[in-house]
Amino acid sequence: MEAPTDLRLTYFNMPGRGEFIRLLFAYGNVPFEDSRITFQEWGAKKATLDLPFGQMPILETHGKTYAQSLAIARYAAKLSGLYPADPLVALEADSLIDAILETWDVYNDIVYGHDDKDTKQQKLDNVGTTTFPRLLANLEKRVKEPFFTGDKPTHADIYLFDFHQHALLEYPTLAKELATNYPKIAAIVERVHNSNELATYFKKA
Amino acid sequence: MEAPTDLRLTYFNMPGRGEFIRLLFAYGNVPFEDSRITFQEWGAKKATLDLPFGQMPILETHGKTYAQSLAIARYAAKLSGLYPADPLVALEADSLIDAILETWDVYNDIVYGHDDKDTKQQKLDNVGTTTFPRLLANLEKRVKEPFFTGDKPTHADIYLFDFHQHALLEYPTLAKELATNYPKIAAIVERVHNSNELATYFKKA
Repeated sequence: MEAPTDLRLTYFNMPGRGEFIRLLFAYGNVPFEDSRITFQEWGAKKATLDLPFGQMPILETHGKTYAQSLAIARYAAKLSGLYPADPLVALEADSLIDAILETWDVYNDIVYGHDDKDTKQQKLDNVGTTTFPRLLANLEKRVKEPFFTGDKPTHADIYLFDFHQHALLEYPTLAKELATNYPKIAAIVERVHNSNELATYFKKA
Repeated sequence: MEAPTDLRLTYFNMPGRGEFIRLLFAYGNVPFEDSRITFQEWGAKKATLDLPFGQMPILETHGKTYAQSLAIARYAAKLSGLYPADPLVALEADSLIDAILETWDVYNDIVYGHDDKDTKQQKLDNVGTTTFPRLLANLEKRVKEPFFTGDKPTHADIYLFDFHQHALLEYPTLAKELATNYPKIAAIVERVHNSNELATYFKKA
């Protein structure tokens, strides 16, 4: 699929909800302007940006602005050849992403929530001992190998990698035992990490 | 797109997160088994069901079970001819759905939350005076007419209708003034409601 040549992604200067999109574009070697805004700039810039629903990331192309990170990610996956043409395979990949997101959001809600320090730590610990392991066990059962849906990588494999880098790695014990307890999941993470497609991106980062 | 003839959707006997999928299948005249479980049955049946991530709805076909309501809905939209072939139009439709979902979830979190009665009512009132109107104003600006993305309906139009029936109608003042304050949105809701495609479904319901 031919990609537009005027893609501009605008998001905070952090991984957050923008990194999945950046990784997908990078994987498909789709050129895009990676416009990053610092938290310091956000207040002043917010009013000058076209934000369809008041939030970032946004993607601009053909003079129009699009919002919502997963919707943009699915578009990026299509341009990068990662979105399955078979509707049932696409259902499976989309479903894995939503399952990861749902669990990741539990973690994010605690991190950005307003609990006192002890309560927050207790909840975070619980994520590491219960919430994340349960997700990983469920995901492990779905892997068809070598990737989530079989021979070809999809956007779900890239999202798993993003989740690993920016959530699972916050739990050293869980991360250390990943290859032992969830070998198929660990293998996907390794494959994405070592893919030729992302080598340039990681060199830049 | 040829639909499988063995589709079975399993969900609670309520609209909730299953109704969007039912409406999409109905719109495309795609036959499916509408398996409904009561809250009374749920406890006993849960262990006997194949639930990839512990939740409903699930969709079974070809001997495999799929989860996550929006992923299933996207699949249903493809079978029903409602998922846009153009990736940018699909991005727009997916984005509108995610924006509606995000706001609907704010409402659901209050309804199913554990606040005391007065706090709950205050939060619900705030949704009706602020949260929902802000979403509606943002959505209204995106409508290309007569449907969200132009001439052809997409799954986003069906989702808006679902949101109207099961959330907006809980706010009589807002719902009553919909046609005056958000005429394009109101027109989409009317069009979906009166579509020939859904006439049989509404006759059954």
